[in-house]
Amino acid sequence: MSGGEAELIRTYFRGMTASQEGVVLGVGDDAALLRPRPQRWLAASCDTLIGGVHFPEDAPPEAVGHRGLAVNLSDMSAMGAAPAWALLSLTLPEEDPAWLDGFSRGFAALADGHGVALVGGDTTRGSLSITVTVLGHVAEHGALCRGGARPGDGIWVTGTLGDAARGLECWRTGPHPLTGDAAWLAGRLLRPEPRVAAGRALAGTATAAIDLSDGLALDLSRLLGESGAGATLDLDALPASDAFRAADGEVRHMLHGGDDYELCFTLPPAAEGGIGEIQRSAGVAMTRIGTVDAEPGLRGRAGGAVRTVEPRGYDHFGGTR
Amino acid sequence: MSGGEAELIRTYFRGMTASQEGVVLGVGDDAALLRPRPQRWLAASCDTLIGGVHFPEDAPPEAVGHRGLAVNLSDMSAMGAAPAWALLSLTLPEEDPAWLDGFSRGFAALADGHGVALVGGDTTRGSLSITVTVLGHVAEHGALCRGGARPGDGIWVTGTLGDAARGLECWRTGPHPLTGDAAWLAGRLLRPEPRVAAGRALAGTATAAIDLSDGLALDLSRLLGESGAGATLDLDALPASDAFRAADGEVRHMLHGGDDYELCFTLPPAAEGGIGEIQRSAGVAMTRIGTVDAEPGLRGRAGGAVRTVEPRGYDHFGGTR
Repeated sequence: MSGGEAELIRTYFRGMTASQEGVVLGVGDDAALLRPRPQRWLAASCDTLIGGVHFPEDAPPEAVGHRGLAVNLSDMSAMGAAPAWALLSLTLPEEDPAWLDGFSRGFAALADGHGVALVGGDTTRGSLSITVTVLGHVAEHGALCRGGARPGDGIWVTGTLGDAARGLECWRTGPHPLTGDAAWLAGRLLRPEPRVAAGRALAGTATAAIDLSDGLALDLSRLLGESGAGATLDLDALPASDAFRAADGEVRHMLHGGDDYELCFTLPPAAEGGIGEIQRSAGVAMTRIGTVDAEPGLRGRAGGAVRTVEPRGYDHFGGTR
Repeated sequence: MSGGEAELIRTYFRGMTASQEGVVLGVGDDAALLRPRPQRWLAASCDTLIGGVHFPEDAPPEAVGHRGLAVNLSDMSAMGAAPAWALLSLTLPEEDPAWLDGFSRGFAALADGHGVALVGGDTTRGSLSITVTVLGHVAEHGALCRGGARPGDGIWVTGTLGDAARGLECWRTGPHPLTGDAAWLAGRLLRPEPRVAAGRALAGTATAAIDLSDGLALDLSRLLGESGAGATLDLDALPASDAFRAADGEVRHMLHGGDDYELCFTLPPAAEGGIGEIQRSAGVAMTRIGTVDAEPGLRGRAGGAVRTVEPRGYDHFGGTR
């Protein structure tokens, strides 16, 4: 990191780089120095958001800052890890103090809420792009992976589905500023709440987990593929928010709409009795939406009929993915 | 990381993601799982390269892959750390198999040479940009920082200076393909060799270190600023390669030209006797180029005269930085 870059990060992200547990040396030298916790594995993930691809270009800068970190914290939650440190690489067309101020406030508020220290980064000139690397801790052998689901396991999700996909439609059609249900739904798109506490509560109990970035059908199919299994969903059980229902949200939003950043996980039958305690500890509702099958592929039951569910996601900003 | 991204990384970077010491789980889940070494601090750095800003847009893809990792390994070397793991975020205008093949070969060759495992990453569509995060290990309390230089310490550099700056001029003026000295100098720009072994050999002995990304004058000034000191350089002692001399390289290239990726470090007088052994262990020549002063600022002595050296770097691809 050059001196100018460190200065910019110090200016806009002050407070976040303060000394924190495990940080020997933060922003400003050639690298950060960190003290990993003993008897823990380190979880590491890295995600890039491109303006106009991963968020609307006219999104408030505070939401972009929040989202840049949230998608990585969501990856941590899907591993059952406790996030500890972040590195931020920010590419901007120009140094815009008002934008940077909003961006850093959004980033810092979420980081502070999860006890995450910003320990390094880089700033460059170019098309708007945000890359965040997050490091966290998870008990040895206690991580949640994608490949552990077994036939007979229940399939569960946190929170509600489809809000972000319906929220994007609200954001696009306006009128702005959005109000009421439309504003709430757009908020679910712009400021997703990573399910960090849920992931930590499920570590050691869930057999598999994934976070829902590209939509339930596609992400669950990935989990099932890694597990060598299939599943049948109860489409009538998919959890919907009141706002989603009031705004005429459809099942396609819940199955194929991305950006929910809820967790989808599997629980063996013997563990399902403990779900009440896990929900209380995580502070979020969890809903059983189906069962893992030995037969590959994804099916959905609605009323009495069973149909195939395509492992198709939807790229909000570009097309099918 | 989505399934398609993992697939792309598996396709182009296979081999690099193979099981390696300390890697519990590599590319393909929501996060990598890593086993840090006991009694070591973790060093973490993150750098972004933008096409046309940090490398010529017509640079060979293999050189871009090399460089994307090299600048981060250089940061590790400046901390005295042993690099272990990398995460790669690659943004491309389009999926170009030939380009990706070259890029991945350049990245993999350097990673393999340093025992670095690619454990995670992300691929997105957009303007060409490469962000790499590298994690490494350093003995507790043994890291090289910028702030430890003291008056009387000798100032040293590895290798030779100015080659990359002169090499860029050769690259720009052609004719291509470059040959002889011009090709060698351009190679120093396109494929910098991070001084990892030198950094590790100096850890615990050097009082301060920084890698030369923005040029000696600017980077040394940063080190001196963090140390609360100044320095006088012996301009006649700056190490030049034969190719640099033959190509009429000038002292401005050596002082203000960026992208050398050599290490600049300070040694207390009592340690200077051991430099021969350190050079042998590092496999690179090291040259004493000046002395740390109590008086702030950077000065240069040439012949009998002393003049001020401006802490000015040069952005090859944009202007002064």
